[in-house]
Amino acid sequence: MPSLVPTPITLLAPYVPGAPIEQIRREYGIDRLVKLASNESAIGASPRVAEALAELLANVHLYPDPRAHDLRAALARHWAIEPGELAFGNGSNELIDLIGRVFAAAEDHVVFGEPSFLCYRIACVAGGIPFTDVPLVDDVAWDVDALLAAVTPRTRLLFLSNPNNPTGAYVGEQALRRLLSELPREVVPVLDEAYAEFATAPDYVSGLSLRHLHPRTIVLRTFSKAYGLAGLRVGYAVAAPEMIGWLERLRAPFNVNALAQAGAIAALADTAHLARAVALNSQERERVAARLTELGFAVAPSQANFVLVSVDAPSAQAYEWFLRQGVILRAFGPPLSHHLRVSLGSPSENDTMLEAFATFRTRAANATEPADTARTTP
Amino acid sequence: MPSLVPTPITLLAPYVPGAPIEQIRREYGIDRLVKLASNESAIGASPRVAEALAELLANVHLYPDPRAHDLRAALARHWAIEPGELAFGNGSNELIDLIGRVFAAAEDHVVFGEPSFLCYRIACVAGGIPFTDVPLVDDVAWDVDALLAAVTPRTRLLFLSNPNNPTGAYVGEQALRRLLSELPREVVPVLDEAYAEFATAPDYVSGLSLRHLHPRTIVLRTFSKAYGLAGLRVGYAVAAPEMIGWLERLRAPFNVNALAQAGAIAALADTAHLARAVALNSQERERVAARLTELGFAVAPSQANFVLVSVDAPSAQAYEWFLRQGVILRAFGPPLSHHLRVSLGSPSENDTMLEAFATFRTRAANATEPADTARTTP
Repeated sequence: MPSLVPTPITLLAPYVPGAPIEQIRREYGIDRLVKLASNESAIGASPRVAEALAELLANVHLYPDPRAHDLRAALARHWAIEPGELAFGNGSNELIDLIGRVFAAAEDHVVFGEPSFLCYRIACVAGGIPFTDVPLVDDVAWDVDALLAAVTPRTRLLFLSNPNNPTGAYVGEQALRRLLSELPREVVPVLDEAYAEFATAPDYVSGLSLRHLHPRTIVLRTFSKAYGLAGLRVGYAVAAPEMIGWLERLRAPFNVNALAQAGAIAALADTAHLARAVALNSQERERVAARLTELGFAVAPSQANFVLVSVDAPSAQAYEWFLRQGVILRAFGPPLSHHLRVSLGSPSENDTMLEAFATFRTRAANATEPADTARTTP
Repeated sequence: MPSLVPTPITLLAPYVPGAPIEQIRREYGIDRLVKLASNESAIGASPRVAEALAELLANVHLYPDPRAHDLRAALARHWAIEPGELAFGNGSNELIDLIGRVFAAAEDHVVFGEPSFLCYRIACVAGGIPFTDVPLVDDVAWDVDALLAAVTPRTRLLFLSNPNNPTGAYVGEQALRRLLSELPREVVPVLDEAYAEFATAPDYVSGLSLRHLHPRTIVLRTFSKAYGLAGLRVGYAVAAPEMIGWLERLRAPFNVNALAQAGAIAALADTAHLARAVALNSQERERVAARLTELGFAVAPSQANFVLVSVDAPSAQAYEWFLRQGVILRAFGPPLSHHLRVSLGSPSENDTMLEAFATFRTRAANATEPADTARTTP
């Protein structure tokens, strides 16, 4: 009997979901849990989103607008681009998968960073597309030369997460200009800017203003992070109409649901709310990084709404330890096997998290004392 | 320069969206439009859905539950199956695409009917998977023998839309038993039952009760039709845990949004609302079919919430004619190039539609009169 599934599918890792919060509460007997694991908005969505959705609840039996006409028009105005330069996804995750299927095949090659957003790798593995995952400098910082050096004559896609999830690093204007200018014309540069709104570095610049440097550039944006719509799933791609046209051939017409479209329009319109989310994030990012550094942890410089922290303990153990303190963080496999990613929450959530890190430091110091003593005693 | 996209993508037809209702209103100067084009619920969703969603509007910044724990539990109870026998999609459309990617590849083969739901073909074309589209009897009715005869040693998937979109035909219990029993064990039978709730024929039986006849059976269900949640996008697959496990390897964790999950739970619980939707549909289906037949139109017997009508005119022309009367119907290409699909709406919407068909009949009769005269005059 032939195998049930094609080979590439067998190479995909089974998805291991995190335990639902209710289950953690029960199993660990913890009442107060602070979840700083998914880079969700610390202040939630604009109140205008709930108002807009409330008006639509009686019409959920109607199919969504397959062209997202109103959201398209709003974003075209927002970015001063043509409506035909936009494609929408069920979160930008879906667009990453779609880009992999539309612009690459098993005889091609893809370049992305490591560690970076997991979905680039999944898109390649699922499609049986060979790839090179280029190590980041010290596992955290981008190296544009290394990315360019990994490009081969077969390369068709280069994914750049900027700022990078899960390290927080960014590629500044000069380096991004060089990447887009030097990348061969047949390679599609995909600039995933899920965290762009949080970037405050003077030389951070969105690929939206550098698209002219490479005609195939695709910029990905999302409403899940700074706009606080992770539960609704809306991401979008900005690219030349020809590129968008190819994505549209495979995109399912009703992939972005009706409430998601309306929520995104409302969120986009509330610029004051976005400014508040970004201002709070900048302030807390600085405060949290300073305090963690003071506690002796190495914190990767971040332009996003999270920080990557070295914990001098295996990630899985550290994750478990924080969980028992009521703080849910995010652990990763190699090369980040001694790191935790900490989403920036509200000031009080961050206080709780920082207290836990202080305790963790004390615990770790105590725990390693006997070993230290042992080493100095022959 | 190498081609921008792999060959299978170039074979996908560009998506041509229908004009938004607002645009039709403007362009045609029509105030009152009746849309019977998308098989949406004639009575909308249960009011409980709006109530359930209203409670969640403040939390749209949180990611959806990737395992759809509560919806999974509710459906497992509903069907008396294991939670591990369920996978969820952003509409069952997404599951069709996922099934194509997970269970077939370019060296395999797929069987489906023609005319049937367009997404089976798209899944094959997108994946470069060879397929056989088996003609329906007189373009409307299923022929299980023909489906079985189309299976080759390379066949890995057989899609059956039951009841069939867009013809309304169904495969009865005896034929379905035979199909599942005789289908080679290595072929995955995908029973797409998007319209199952509307089927009232005594010998209609869901594949959910016949899964034991073929261990690889996948049954697809949706909340878009009888449950009235087309705008929210929730479909699901029921299959053996091994089959579900493969789908889960490729499914994106956040594909079903948070409001969609909650809406589906609320809709599922309101059994009285579902019963009303089905009862109204049965009544209107009989009335509409009788009246159209009386007017001289051939109507395909339907077990769904629409009827396929022969119109003795090219579909595109007929579509345009009805549009100008303020009635939006659905036209198809060959082999249905002289048919329109008419969704069953509320009694008053259906009255408007039936009046338009009466006028269409008169118009057609008048229009063909000179030709008839010509034929009898040498």
